[in-house]
Amino acid sequence: MEKKLRIALAQINPTVGDLKGNRKKIKYFLKQAQQYKVDVVIFPELAICGYPPEDLLLKGHFVRDNLETLNSLIEETSGIVMIVGFVDSDEKGNLYNSAAIVQNGQLKGIYHKFELPNYGVFDEKRYFQPGERVPLFKLGGTIFGVTICEDIWKRDGVVKLEADRGAQLIINISASPYHAGKRELRKQILTERVRETKTHICYTNQIGGQDELVFDGGSAIIDPDGEIIAKGMEFEEDLVMGDLRIRESLKEDTKTNDKNYIALDEVETAEKPPLPKRKYITLTRLEEIYSALVLGTRDYIIKNGFKKVVIGLSGGIDSSLTAVIACDAIGKENVIGVSMPSQYSSQQTQSDTKALANNLGIRLIVVPIASIFKAYLMSLEKEFKGLKRDVTEENLQARIRGNILMAFSNKFGWLVLTTGNKSETSVGYCTLYGDMAGGFAVIKDVPKMLVYELACYRNKKESKNVIPESILNREPSAELKPDQKDSDSLPPYPVLDEILKRYVEEDRSLEEIVLSTKFDSEVVKDVIRKVDRNEYKRRQSPPGVKITPKAFGKDRRLPIVNRYREDQEQV
Amino acid sequence: MEKKLRIALAQINPTVGDLKGNRKKIKYFLKQAQQYKVDVVIFPELAICGYPPEDLLLKGHFVRDNLETLNSLIEETSGIVMIVGFVDSDEKGNLYNSAAIVQNGQLKGIYHKFELPNYGVFDEKRYFQPGERVPLFKLGGTIFGVTICEDIWKRDGVVKLEADRGAQLIINISASPYHAGKRELRKQILTERVRETKTHICYTNQIGGQDELVFDGGSAIIDPDGEIIAKGMEFEEDLVMGDLRIRESLKEDTKTNDKNYIALDEVETAEKPPLPKRKYITLTRLEEIYSALVLGTRDYIIKNGFKKVVIGLSGGIDSSLTAVIACDAIGKENVIGVSMPSQYSSQQTQSDTKALANNLGIRLIVVPIASIFKAYLMSLEKEFKGLKRDVTEENLQARIRGNILMAFSNKFGWLVLTTGNKSETSVGYCTLYGDMAGGFAVIKDVPKMLVYELACYRNKKESKNVIPESILNREPSAELKPDQKDSDSLPPYPVLDEILKRYVEEDRSLEEIVLSTKFDSEVVKDVIRKVDRNEYKRRQSPPGVKITPKAFGKDRRLPIVNRYREDQEQV
Repeated sequence: MEKKLRIALAQINPTVGDLKGNRKKIKYFLKQAQQYKVDVVIFPELAICGYPPEDLLLKGHFVRDNLETLNSLIEETSGIVMIVGFVDSDEKGNLYNSAAIVQNGQLKGIYHKFELPNYGVFDEKRYFQPGERVPLFKLGGTIFGVTICEDIWKRDGVVKLEADRGAQLIINISASPYHAGKRELRKQILTERVRETKTHICYTNQIGGQDELVFDGGSAIIDPDGEIIAKGMEFEEDLVMGDLRIRESLKEDTKTNDKNYIALDEVETAEKPPLPKRKYITLTRLEEIYSALVLGTRDYIIKNGFKKVVIGLSGGIDSSLTAVIACDAIGKENVIGVSMPSQYSSQQTQSDTKALANNLGIRLIVVPIASIFKAYLMSLEKEFKGLKRDVTEENLQARIRGNILMAFSNKFGWLVLTTGNKSETSVGYCTLYGDMAGGFAVIKDVPKMLVYELACYRNKKESKNVIPESILNREPSAELKPDQKDSDSLPPYPVLDEILKRYVEEDRSLEEIVLSTKFDSEVVKDVIRKVDRNEYKRRQSPPGVKITPKAFGKDRRLPIVNRYREDQEQV
Repeated sequence: MEKKLRIALAQINPTVGDLKGNRKKIKYFLKQAQQYKVDVVIFPELAICGYPPEDLLLKGHFVRDNLETLNSLIEETSGIVMIVGFVDSDEKGNLYNSAAIVQNGQLKGIYHKFELPNYGVFDEKRYFQPGERVPLFKLGGTIFGVTICEDIWKRDGVVKLEADRGAQLIINISASPYHAGKRELRKQILTERVRETKTHICYTNQIGGQDELVFDGGSAIIDPDGEIIAKGMEFEEDLVMGDLRIRESLKEDTKTNDKNYIALDEVETAEKPPLPKRKYITLTRLEEIYSALVLGTRDYIIKNGFKKVVIGLSGGIDSSLTAVIACDAIGKENVIGVSMPSQYSSQQTQSDTKALANNLGIRLIVVPIASIFKAYLMSLEKEFKGLKRDVTEENLQARIRGNILMAFSNKFGWLVLTTGNKSETSVGYCTLYGDMAGGFAVIKDVPKMLVYELACYRNKKESKNVIPESILNREPSAELKPDQKDSDSLPPYPVLDEILKRYVEEDRSLEEIVLSTKFDSEVVKDVIRKVDRNEYKRRQSPPGVKITPKAFGKDRRLPIVNRYREDQEQV
């Protein structure tokens, strides 16, 4: 005999610490699910308090407030099972990353996460104790188990254990951050678990930006044959519903006698309203990355309470792409461009800046910096007498621009978006307190070659090129001295990006990089030295959206004082 | 019968990643120990690669180079047992925070750390697997066990286990970072372990600065009665030697038959040279904190390859104390002061700055900022027309000063030291890219009231006040607008510091703080709001020496996007 269950995955966008706002959002999705007579509605990991709450967890009052919020939601669960992530605490004060299983105004059970990730951007062992209990639940004849995020990534782990004990349905609540390629990885993992367990799997992931992280959703209901019954949008809130037909299982028959499950109240058997038809769109690689940047930027701006942003526009590709993303994130009426030409700014870059602002329909403010630059040089004349111009004067110009943007920020409450890409951030080809000055670094984790790809992708989306062709075609230059080109100081970007991918993201050695790329070893050495030497700059940079497997920030924790040099004999 | 052992604790200052330099240092201390016919010389935790190596551990080649460095040291151990910290790796690639037990050119055994700290500034579970084996060693009739740092902090842990299995001597190698009060805590813990085990304990801690951490040494040899046989200096390298007289133990008699130890080669029984007489100095609280700041600053400067530093001198107490610490760290000839007066700088602060520079004997450069400030105002005139002056213009002045200091840094290779204290850093009473611009924030973790205490302490050390009396007595002011006082924006510092200690260091709630201090709840609320709202500024601040139990940085990891507010109803 087959049993039917209607499931809803509530793919929401919670905000860290916003207990009141998250409660409201959860209640809203819960009500929607109730209207469709859903049997089980599933919210993401730590949905009550947002993920990751970091050291808020060390505040006893925060944990208590999170429990109160959960309690206030329990009473809303008439006629439905709600599964929601929260922080549980035991009498000794130990914390657990937990799922509450709630029905008809009662807390029916709690699951504590088994696998606590403590690598990459994750620090869960800093806060939580691992779970030890594996409760199963029986609802309308179906036995299900609950797991949390990392739990489902493990072969022969708690998922398998639950299936072995009789679960016909595995529920997983996640807050799984995005990077390009993660979607495929996740699909593969879910397929593996289905094969391992021969159960239905309901996977709910959150969406939204939180500091450097962006969550992409992609929630899914999969049947024991690996068929996708329903799938969530990417980078958007969604209520993903599906009707499960659960086969009688042999395992269940043998186990039910053991009473090794918590019996939930009977489900309503009345006729259910039909589910809305859905269209599934799978984003292309560039669409996906671009969407991640837009959502990460939008949420950083809005969740921090800003309404408008200001961007220094140089007529280069990086600031152009940043401006386009900002417009897509919060609307062109909320984006202000500032052009700050100097004597080294060409006519072409200045007219390109105007064309870009025009294409985007954003306000453009022009503040030339020559007179301020001159005032600095005169004030420093005595001390710098007889010395050649060098990077000092280049940085001064960048810092004047940083100050002007910050003045607009202070005067009007606009958030400054910085425009540096991952390639230049890696090798320190950027000025601390200059072009690095600002609140959010939109394309900080986007390598230069990908900046070009994204700009072309975005241009193709409309009939007319938003980013002027000449910006795409011009050789990159910082325009801080006469006839300057990036290539004066750096290898060509296709070479640089290949080296950086291996060194920064894959932790490869000098030797391995030279062997695998066949690049000149002096070139590779020089890049590695630059990356190592500029850790101090990155430590003072604003956050930005993580889109690669290893971004700067919590993902890559290198000491500033660090004398390890591969190109020297160590012993 | 009594057995004699001569022990040396090599309290060295390694540098993270400097395998070659650390090897040289270890060899130097090893040779000294050999000259005194020491039986066992003990080096700190991870002495081979420096502590904490952070994500260098994720580089396979780094771990391999660390193993090679260890191997090259083994051959130097003729006639002596050397115990030294290194990173061990198994065939699966798992890493262990380890101690090598080496004698006469042979690796005799390895101990893997049991307890991996993953709280506060520590992330050891990110890298290491915990140990599972408890090898004991027999040398000249004495059985000893080895442990690493955190191991000795646990009651009923591996230390007790080793003693129960017959160890008469417990060796602990540590890299235990300093904060004010840690010395007493450590003493208490060691006393507890002696009581628990009735063994000799040899505790070796490193010294030196590493990014935000400073290690204070204080190595000690303690006998089973809790008497200190020998003690290391604080904040200085030291070779601490002592002769142990180890009593025959009943436990040993019963256990030796089990052969549950590794037998080391026989020790030389020849007459040993007499040990040098030592004088033990115990630092006062302020001496200790001041020494931590000096060592942390010196090591950050020198280990990063800088020779000189530049400091913006305002005539205030913070920049004055920073300058004095810098002089004590690297010598007055390497410290340059820059005075950058504006129209709001009083005659008194300018003459005080001169007096301070004069007292210290440092070079003072004067760069007035009025003309640059005017150039900015003119360039922004059109956009700011009709708007009142506000914090924008105040920040502009601070940022001009930041730019000038960075220009000196770029032109001459001087490291900029910033001068902000913990109180203002907490509430954001400081300008990003302005007074926060620089490479190292010396007193970042020093609350304002402690700044005064340290300044007075330092003044009393010499017959003449280095910091002019009028700097100590003047009411604090940022001098960024007419008649400005810190007290216009902030509660009095004695009040502010009490609130901050409870909120930032102890994670107390609003309610708890109001109850325990009896301060006005609106005042406490306002401070909490300011601390929360300024997380983004602190994220972009340079590192500085940790001297309190909880510093900003790795110690306190709060999200920037964070809507948790205690003063709002949550539900």
